[in-house]
Amino acid sequence: MSAEIICVGTELLLGDIVNTNVQFLAKELANLGIPHYYQTVVGDNPTRLKEVINIASQRASILLFTGGLGPTPDDLTTETIAQCFNSPLVEKADIIEDIQRKFTARGRQMNENNRKQALIPDGATILPNPTGTAPGIIWGPRANLTLMTFPGVPSEMKRMWSETAVPHLKSQGWGKEIIFSRMLRFRGIGESSLATKVNHFFDLTNPTVAPYASLGEVRLRISAKTTSEAEANSIIEPVAREIINIAGADYFGQDDNTLAQVVGGLLREQQQTVAVAESCTGGGLGAMFTEIPGSSDYFWGGVIAYDNRVKISLLEVSAEALEHHGAVSNIVAQQMALGVKQRLKTDWGMSITGIAGPGGGTDIKPVGLVYIGIASPDGQVASVECTFGDRTRDIIRYLSSCTALDQLRRKLI
Amino acid sequence: MSAEIICVGTELLLGDIVNTNVQFLAKELANLGIPHYYQTVVGDNPTRLKEVINIASQRASILLFTGGLGPTPDDLTTETIAQCFNSPLVEKADIIEDIQRKFTARGRQMNENNRKQALIPDGATILPNPTGTAPGIIWGPRANLTLMTFPGVPSEMKRMWSETAVPHLKSQGWGKEIIFSRMLRFRGIGESSLATKVNHFFDLTNPTVAPYASLGEVRLRISAKTTSEAEANSIIEPVAREIINIAGADYFGQDDNTLAQVVGGLLREQQQTVAVAESCTGGGLGAMFTEIPGSSDYFWGGVIAYDNRVKISLLEVSAEALEHHGAVSNIVAQQMALGVKQRLKTDWGMSITGIAGPGGGTDIKPVGLVYIGIASPDGQVASVECTFGDRTRDIIRYLSSCTALDQLRRKLI
Repeated sequence: MSAEIICVGTELLLGDIVNTNVQFLAKELANLGIPHYYQTVVGDNPTRLKEVINIASQRASILLFTGGLGPTPDDLTTETIAQCFNSPLVEKADIIEDIQRKFTARGRQMNENNRKQALIPDGATILPNPTGTAPGIIWGPRANLTLMTFPGVPSEMKRMWSETAVPHLKSQGWGKEIIFSRMLRFRGIGESSLATKVNHFFDLTNPTVAPYASLGEVRLRISAKTTSEAEANSIIEPVAREIINIAGADYFGQDDNTLAQVVGGLLREQQQTVAVAESCTGGGLGAMFTEIPGSSDYFWGGVIAYDNRVKISLLEVSAEALEHHGAVSNIVAQQMALGVKQRLKTDWGMSITGIAGPGGGTDIKPVGLVYIGIASPDGQVASVECTFGDRTRDIIRYLSSCTALDQLRRKLI
Repeated sequence: MSAEIICVGTELLLGDIVNTNVQFLAKELANLGIPHYYQTVVGDNPTRLKEVINIASQRASILLFTGGLGPTPDDLTTETIAQCFNSPLVEKADIIEDIQRKFTARGRQMNENNRKQALIPDGATILPNPTGTAPGIIWGPRANLTLMTFPGVPSEMKRMWSETAVPHLKSQGWGKEIIFSRMLRFRGIGESSLATKVNHFFDLTNPTVAPYASLGEVRLRISAKTTSEAEANSIIEPVAREIINIAGADYFGQDDNTLAQVVGGLLREQQQTVAVAESCTGGGLGAMFTEIPGSSDYFWGGVIAYDNRVKISLLEVSAEALEHHGAVSNIVAQQMALGVKQRLKTDWGMSITGIAGPGGGTDIKPVGLVYIGIASPDGQVASVECTFGDRTRDIIRYLSSCTALDQLRRKLI
């Protein structure tokens, strides 16, 4: 018993869109424990689609189709499937009603073309589409073969998958064991160093632990195969706790927790406020802080001091420091952090000054050299030197903002 | 004569990664005028891969493979292909040498596993991989069938494709007619309004004109099928010029030109400088300006005035305006723009203040209400009210920054 995914659409053959549907379905099948060995993409062409269905129905018992359910003449998935299994199409009154209702709600007239969407193979069940006009089908044209069709629009397909297809597959006995995962996120440690520290966890079988490298952070995915989320948590939790203990301050959060969220949470807990002074990031650190709804509780604002005149006039950076050490230096980073803290009257002041490239680098101060300053509530000022190497401007700016957030996080914990 | 793309990798079946390789190759095949009707994904399993190759080699004459060229035991593409066509593998000394050279350059030792990567089917040509250790092959195992293999790493695959595969395919007579495109970009006009204005161009056949909607802008792609880029330009240029004329100020740039780039170019031309005052975008506008290398020529910096105290202390927004009109108002936007212009002594001052949500909206001032202020070199201040509707926080912030840039662009042209 295995599944196969068949995506129908000439736009996929032209490369107009990237096929995210197949990735979604592949992941979902893996989570349900349903093996699948092939994915096929074919255009809006009934002869070729028939060939694909013939091949797939010989080697798989669950065929998932995306695309080709729309109202236009080149949407041919349903009728081609019916032809493959010599089944007539029947018009479903509930589908017509549903489409009419949706058109009325949008203040539009149902088109005669839409009637086509109400035709499904005799014996098939409707796979309802709550948001769009194109319903899918669940159909067993012969023993040991189930076909399910979904529209190509990702949001419609995903909702139909989770609301109807998954319960159906579970009712067939699939997904008794489901994979639950927790992603632990780390900063300030490389993938191989972290791997060395937690090496002994990689041999576990349930849960499994696997490392993932990601820009500016390292992740460990802990996955458990169980019958319930509660059981998964009980398997994952002790391993997660051990790993977090080993990693110490390098661990910052899990799953969707971003650095900005974690830092924001810490500031809110400690009822402290922060302001930023940015040179090479040009506002990127402030933008990161304010991505988080409610960040006005602790983030007051800042100064974008791209030009040295602004560093002097608004942040009271000394002309002497700029002249002797340059704008990209520990001393200027410190003066910027202190300057913004004092000017905005916040508990913390943070600064970033560096060379984001691609131009502007020298032998002594190469592209990727960045200084991050932090002024603390007690009036202390510290700074760190970062060398992000010969990366692109975007990445250097992104890593600078992330590192600044991480520096503050380490001071707050 | 048609091509077929076969992607090999269990990670694709698990949904761990999205298959961008196939989109890239699909687009490239379309550009070369090579038809292709099927794409297949299969795991690192020689039996199933063989089946896929057997099917594909019966219906296509060019097979493109990605993935499975690495040094580990589950990388099986090359040897499986050889088995399919009953060819022995031969070790290529040049590949061994090349791998050794690359390892030395990276200060590492070549691994015994890497020897495997030097084995290719007898009679095949090496498809060199300038950046990685896994070379591909170009092989015609029988008449009217060409196989090409590429590694799964997108950057390596793409370079090998353009440096070796494309010239090879052209030498076989493909790509005599190539599709060249130019994307025209518009702001401040909806897709349907623009479509109505330029409707008569949609019937053209060479070049073709097609609209694309994109977040915060509308695009028209003009595509010409010709034998040379010069000829393509001569076909595209008059149509582009006519459309740009019709669109007037709503046209802002083409291809990779971003708004920030276009605005930066105008400021540089006019030798003027700009500063920003940001509330709800929290630095996002400054970050957009400074994405462009060399933006220090015209972008001096700004004030992130997230908290009202900062609006008062650094931007001289009046407490009275804040009290009577609220921070999200025309008058505060104007005071912010003027304040930052005066404080930073730039020619232009720009401001953004709004409600990015998800919280903070009221009946009178709903989420998505944003004011954008611009203070001009002559001391005039203007502001516009935008209603971005009930969108997500990210999108409202993004559209706010884009609109601010566009407002300045319209004043500069």
